[in-house]
Amino acid sequence: MSNQNKQYKLAARPIGVPKESGWEFTSSEIPSAGDGGVVVKVHYVSLDPAMRGWMNDAKSYIPPVGLGEVMRAGTVGEVIESNNPAFAVGDYVTGYHGVQQYGVSDGKDLVKVDPKLAPLESYLGGLGMPGLTAYFGLTDVGAVKEGDTVLVSGAAGAVGSLVGQIAKIKGARAVGIAGGADKCKYVVEELGFDACIDYKSDSFLQDMKAPLKSGVDVYFDNVGGDILDLALARLNRHARVVICGAISQYNNTTPVKGPANYLNLLVQHARMEGFVVFDYVQQYAEGIQQLATWHSQGNLKFKEHVDTGIENFPSTFLKLFTGENFGKLVLKVIED
Amino acid sequence: MSNQNKQYKLAARPIGVPKESGWEFTSSEIPSAGDGGVVVKVHYVSLDPAMRGWMNDAKSYIPPVGLGEVMRAGTVGEVIESNNPAFAVGDYVTGYHGVQQYGVSDGKDLVKVDPKLAPLESYLGGLGMPGLTAYFGLTDVGAVKEGDTVLVSGAAGAVGSLVGQIAKIKGARAVGIAGGADKCKYVVEELGFDACIDYKSDSFLQDMKAPLKSGVDVYFDNVGGDILDLALARLNRHARVVICGAISQYNNTTPVKGPANYLNLLVQHARMEGFVVFDYVQQYAEGIQQLATWHSQGNLKFKEHVDTGIENFPSTFLKLFTGENFGKLVLKVIED
Repeated sequence: MSNQNKQYKLAARPIGVPKESGWEFTSSEIPSAGDGGVVVKVHYVSLDPAMRGWMNDAKSYIPPVGLGEVMRAGTVGEVIESNNPAFAVGDYVTGYHGVQQYGVSDGKDLVKVDPKLAPLESYLGGLGMPGLTAYFGLTDVGAVKEGDTVLVSGAAGAVGSLVGQIAKIKGARAVGIAGGADKCKYVVEELGFDACIDYKSDSFLQDMKAPLKSGVDVYFDNVGGDILDLALARLNRHARVVICGAISQYNNTTPVKGPANYLNLLVQHARMEGFVVFDYVQQYAEGIQQLATWHSQGNLKFKEHVDTGIENFPSTFLKLFTGENFGKLVLKVIED
Repeated sequence: MSNQNKQYKLAARPIGVPKESGWEFTSSEIPSAGDGGVVVKVHYVSLDPAMRGWMNDAKSYIPPVGLGEVMRAGTVGEVIESNNPAFAVGDYVTGYHGVQQYGVSDGKDLVKVDPKLAPLESYLGGLGMPGLTAYFGLTDVGAVKEGDTVLVSGAAGAVGSLVGQIAKIKGARAVGIAGGADKCKYVVEELGFDACIDYKSDSFLQDMKAPLKSGVDVYFDNVGGDILDLALARLNRHARVVICGAISQYNNTTPVKGPANYLNLLVQHARMEGFVVFDYVQQYAEGIQQLATWHSQGNLKFKEHVDTGIENFPSTFLKLFTGENFGKLVLKVIED
């Protein structure tokens, strides 16, 4: 086992798709806890579309990652040194230690998790930010109710897969959009969606008609672009469009494509609303509790796509944008 | 006085800006009331941006006007024959008689108005659909509250001029966007907005900064296009964007320009919601009562732009799109 802390730092702000050369792969000494601090040995790093936004030098809901800083990312790992009475060596915790093997913290951003309840990596997925994003986005922003038709893009992804399952739990119909026959099959057969439409199919436009013939009451958008426009065209009266992300637009070097069909909001007296999960920080505990309950009852399935080896971070990260991952994308950085 | 009923019928569906040749100007016999019917001599025809949408053969909240049919429009006039006990000869009524001098109705769509309370044409403006649109759009969809900054485009127009005044009544700051120094002066000095920005000025982008330095809590959009995008960029947390219209886009022959900055809804946890005033038909009486009260107290001013002569309908209608009208655009069709 190495006694070095391998890290990925942001070396250049990307234009378009992030390049290998935009990262600096370095190693440093394993940090020590310091006064009141905690050292965490990271097991898994979470790879999320939002990270692409943090790489831009733009005003947003959170400051950008600075050049030369360790890339920000959610993590789960084990406490290996603690000067903080709230944490003991051997505790497992989630945090934001970034793309590195060891992180130090004052403990404020750490949340203890129980590896006996669910595998550690689930705390970056269905029992972590993606789970909370699906839960608050669909129930609060989307105001889903029994009998609704819920359409969700990125349906095989970390958030989308949960949105459809929560829709079903709430008595709604769930229709997914995903890329490829395998993902669609998984979404319907494993996750229990009512239908899934393959956007990579030549018959995509035709394939949308039957499952959406009664229109869309809630559209949960993870992708933006043309798919958002197609969904807007099918809204029912008083529909809700939840803007969670726009992964089709994050690597754009041309201006973002605005949704030309937004005027259907007027025709249908519908609304489009955005949110980030950080808005719900006061309700995280409630959300995790609800997700864990549904999970233990067998009504909410999670799937993680685990790549291994911190050195693979640049290429693994890009899978988010090519759609190569199948399930919540995490990188195992602990060395066996 | 002619004993003919002059009418404008839709002769061709326009592509882009409606052309003179797209109308058929005809005359027919003055209709008679028939069983239970009412004949109204039209004094004023309302000219509204929404009419452009009704000319397209497209699914919307209301069927399109058919080719060869009298162009749909709101009207106010006098009952000259009645077989309906609810209406007497000499009553003044609003209705949807379209672009013609005499209309017949079963009475269901007629609403009696009092010409002593306000000039007849005001019942097509501040005490009519534009007034109700401003009222329900700002208070219900926009959920305006004390201390908000309300930005409204088309601020010198039929709806926008009322939106800003209602914002002030509700204790909000009102900032308008209008075309030209004269309109802006009117909006601030006559209507009492806190500021007005001239979108025709070369310094428009610069001029937005000071009055919007604390951001936008409610944006009431009548125009769409680039101005919607600029407003989206300035939203505050939990802002509300009210989509009332998109006059910049109605004559497009290219696809509608979607708002590229819609992702700011996500960053700001803001919402964008559309509506048409017909959604509030059950509350029209309440709305008119409130508007008339504010008007009588001197807190709500109306202005109409009156053109004269039914034969001028095609050119007067186009003023909506060039911004030539100053106040609610109506056409006086009664011949003195």
